[in-house]
Amino acid sequence: MKFTVSEIAQMLDGTIVGNEKITIDSAAKIEEGRPGCISFLANSKYEPYIYTTQSSAVIVNKDFVPKKEISTTLIYVENAYTAFTILLEEYQKRIAGGKTGVEQPSFIGENSQTGENCYRGAFSYIGKNCVIGNSVKIYPNTYLGDNIEIGDNSVIHPGVRIYDNTIIGKNCVIFANTVIGSDGFGFAPQTDGTYKTIPQLGNVILEDDVSVGSNSTIDCATMGSTIIRKGVKIDNLVQIAHNVEIGKNTVIAAQSGISGSTTVGEQCVVAGQVGIVGHITIANKTKIGAQSGLGKSIKKEGLSLSGSPARDLNEHLRSMALVRRLPEIEERLKDLENKHETSDFQGQ
Amino acid sequence: MKFTVSEIAQMLDGTIVGNEKITIDSAAKIEEGRPGCISFLANSKYEPYIYTTQSSAVIVNKDFVPKKEISTTLIYVENAYTAFTILLEEYQKRIAGGKTGVEQPSFIGENSQTGENCYRGAFSYIGKNCVIGNSVKIYPNTYLGDNIEIGDNSVIHPGVRIYDNTIIGKNCVIFANTVIGSDGFGFAPQTDGTYKTIPQLGNVILEDDVSVGSNSTIDCATMGSTIIRKGVKIDNLVQIAHNVEIGKNTVIAAQSGISGSTTVGEQCVVAGQVGIVGHITIANKTKIGAQSGLGKSIKKEGLSLSGSPARDLNEHLRSMALVRRLPEIEERLKDLENKHETSDFQGQ
Amino acid sequence: MKFTVSEIAQMLDGTIVGNEKITIDSAAKIEEGRPGCISFLANSKYEPYIYTTQSSAVIVNKDFVPKKEISTTLIYVENAYTAFTILLEEYQKRIAGGKTGVEQPSFIGENSQTGENCYRGAFSYIGKNCVIGNSVKIYPNTYLGDNIEIGDNSVIHPGVRIYDNTIIGKNCVIFANTVIGSDGFGFAPQTDGTYKTIPQLGNVILEDDVSVGSNSTIDCATMGSTIIRKGVKIDNLVQIAHNVEIGKNTVIAAQSGISGSTTVGEQCVVAGQVGIVGHITIANKTKIGAQSGLGKSIKKEGLSLSGSPARDLNEHLRSMALVRRLPEIEERLKDLENKHETSDFQGQ
Repeated sequence: MKFTVSEIAQMLDGTIVGNEKITIDSAAKIEEGRPGCISFLANSKYEPYIYTTQSSAVIVNKDFVPKKEISTTLIYVENAYTAFTILLEEYQKRIAGGKTGVEQPSFIGENSQTGENCYRGAFSYIGKNCVIGNSVKIYPNTYLGDNIEIGDNSVIHPGVRIYDNTIIGKNCVIFANTVIGSDGFGFAPQTDGTYKTIPQLGNVILEDDVSVGSNSTIDCATMGSTIIRKGVKIDNLVQIAHNVEIGKNTVIAAQSGISGSTTVGEQCVVAGQVGIVGHITIANKTKIGAQSGLGKSIKKEGLSLSGSPARDLNEHLRSMALVRRLPEIEERLKDLENKHETSDFQGQ
Repeated sequence: MKFTVSEIAQMLDGTIVGNEKITIDSAAKIEEGRPGCISFLANSKYEPYIYTTQSSAVIVNKDFVPKKEISTTLIYVENAYTAFTILLEEYQKRIAGGKTGVEQPSFIGENSQTGENCYRGAFSYIGKNCVIGNSVKIYPNTYLGDNIEIGDNSVIHPGVRIYDNTIIGKNCVIFANTVIGSDGFGFAPQTDGTYKTIPQLGNVILEDDVSVGSNSTIDCATMGSTIIRKGVKIDNLVQIAHNVEIGKNTVIAAQSGISGSTTVGEQCVVAGQVGIVGHITIANKTKIGAQSGLGKSIKKEGLSLSGSPARDLNEHLRSMALVRRLPEIEERLKDLENKHETSDFQGQ
Repeated sequence: MKFTVSEIAQMLDGTIVGNEKITIDSAAKIEEGRPGCISFLANSKYEPYIYTTQSSAVIVNKDFVPKKEISTTLIYVENAYTAFTILLEEYQKRIAGGKTGVEQPSFIGENSQTGENCYRGAFSYIGKNCVIGNSVKIYPNTYLGDNIEIGDNSVIHPGVRIYDNTIIGKNCVIFANTVIGSDGFGFAPQTDGTYKTIPQLGNVILEDDVSVGSNSTIDCATMGSTIIRKGVKIDNLVQIAHNVEIGKNTVIAAQSGISGSTTVGEQCVVAGQVGIVGHITIANKTKIGAQSGLGKSIKKEGLSLSGSPARDLNEHLRSMALVRRLPEIEERLKDLENKHETSDFQGQ
């Protein structure tokens, strides 16, 4: 698919300085560009590359003033990064085109219905009483159980497993091999040392605009619902246990795990490999650093936490710096002890 | 599905105080109840809710004495929590009903046989020479290789992959997209810097009553067997490496990983995101706290460990408290140093 | 499948001491052997077992001198461990035999072609314009999108998902349920608190001889390629984010995660549950200990690092030893403080 610089500038409401007739067929980082590519410059750290880039065009902020000669064509816009993103989205939409129709063999149970303009890939399985909205894409090799609802425009990637009674909103994206709604990990210890399974009868609700990465797991509630609120973004290999609730627009990076019945606030940022214990509440806008372990409720909004157990980021950094210096600290302690012994001796 | 309070009391061997004819169609937490729901009260922390709950009935311990007026119907039983669990199980059994029969298309290889009352979902694949017991449920989109045995009543959820020669006992449950028996991670370094694959010829054995969550991985042994003993419960996204053995009734929470050739004892509790190195032995009844890293064999039974490297929980907590106080400790050290300098000076 | 000791010795260029006509039908560890098995002895730690092993034959190093009487047959070779590995490989090759042909139903899109001697399992899905080399095995229930290339002899295990435009080299092995090429985790925060998806238009390239374990995830690049170089070995449940590059012959153990745009050098060893932040560069031959967290670029080659944040292994161990001793250190500090108070008092 090809665009001229002129078409792109029009799409982005931008102003061209250079050759408006050049044809663009791909996108690249400014430092990796080649003829036919378009790039962007938003972070001044990358400015040196604009004087040497092989890209045919570069989108720049409207206040950009070149310090040297530039051979590439420039497109000035309000915000280069945003404009570039819009461009990529437009590009992606056009190439994705949008699969529709039903590939065979595929399976759909009694009383299940799909809206208009849907795609059901080969070897996809849909159980009974499911209600699938318009323009939903269900890729090959997926499994949907019974009584499932999926809102308009949502995309279920290959190998996704969705258990009975799950409700998924509009514009959600679930990437490959993620499992939604399998049993929470609930076992009651018996006096003979064995464990009895606690039935997990609840479901999972994903509100609109939720994205879940690949190979993640979101367990159904024991009773009631595990709830992922509107706009939440979850990365790969993340574990969300039963009865968890994740607040609006919270972001959770790869390999983090949230234990049962914990409520995470809105607009939180959970970095990678974080662990959060069960039955706690985390205030809105909390930021939790990578590999942290959170063991207690956080009541104040907007804190930055780190460490395991997690605490205030700056305090954690200060303690970690001192841990590094422990050999020196012990040396100083020894020095003092020696002086004391000497002075005790002298004092005798 | 509906029950009367009278039917439920009979099922649980309970005594009713209130309206025995009310109809129950769902279960809920006592604080989230609504008409038609049944709840339970076991932990006195939740007692205040029993005076305001909207649930139509609440199961309580036989020694429960209300402190205020109660509008909901009570069912007195020996142990409210256990009784509630029994009720949920009964409910789950009745709704699950139990799929049986074969959906098409599905694949079954030469010499493979299934017992009575089995379910084989669409797009499920069974290789050669497999022996599947009675009442086994194999959900859609699953893969079983060759020479696999599965005992009566086990359930293989959608997307599970079971490699050749795996043996699974009775009453096991394997949740979605879990992989059992793929190659252990074994590579021999060569002098030119490359790695040569060490063939993994062993298998995996799951004894009876084992449960494995979603998206977990249990590798086959290099030679011999990776063994998961009777009654073990494994959560989501857990890694069990080659030649590991997990003792009876041990519980392993989400995202934990156990390295090759390690033997974990019986009745252990491994919390979430724990890492255990290879080639060690862990005594029975060991408890390992979340995010811990265990690097050495544990010989004494019943210890509680935490930290990375893991050690006695209380010692770990004491050290962590002191790590938090390191800035203060260094201040105190500085004070002493200053006093010394002063006193040295004065002493001159 | 059966071999005589004589056939095995010939295969390994070895010398027999004992009965060359014994038949071998299986392999076992020396301490677990039984009649019909072959074992090896490389590490002298296991020497005591050679005097009691039930294995019918044992492969030993050519310089092995028995200290007691031995009843099993010995095969002397240059390097017992290597020889044993060769034997296992040969055995595996012969039993695997190598599936070929196409099982039905399976799906293959327009313009896609497979080479000679390939296997396409039932319920496997191949999109459009794919180029699959010779002797490639695509197991059941797999998904390959469009425009994918796979080199000769590569094996795609059950449930693997490969997104559009992925390029896989020769002799690669991708184990069950691994996802290659799903979207990188890229979202641009908006002023209203929501996140806008950043289109991920790049792909993933796996060079020759790469192995990826089960349930791992390798994200496509935002632009350009996420690259896994020749000979890299990746374990189960590993996360490789967008635009990462992993250098030749690097090994990454289970549950580790590498964040976006990081470059890992050649011949590195990343142990289990390691986290590496984004946008850094790690020198060749770096060794990173289990559960470490790496936050900064490593410029010097060949370092051993550990801890979170990771630093020199020996320094880390020293600090950790002192963390354990913090209670004692604080006691010593208190002692000094008490002495000072006393001496201050005395001094008055």
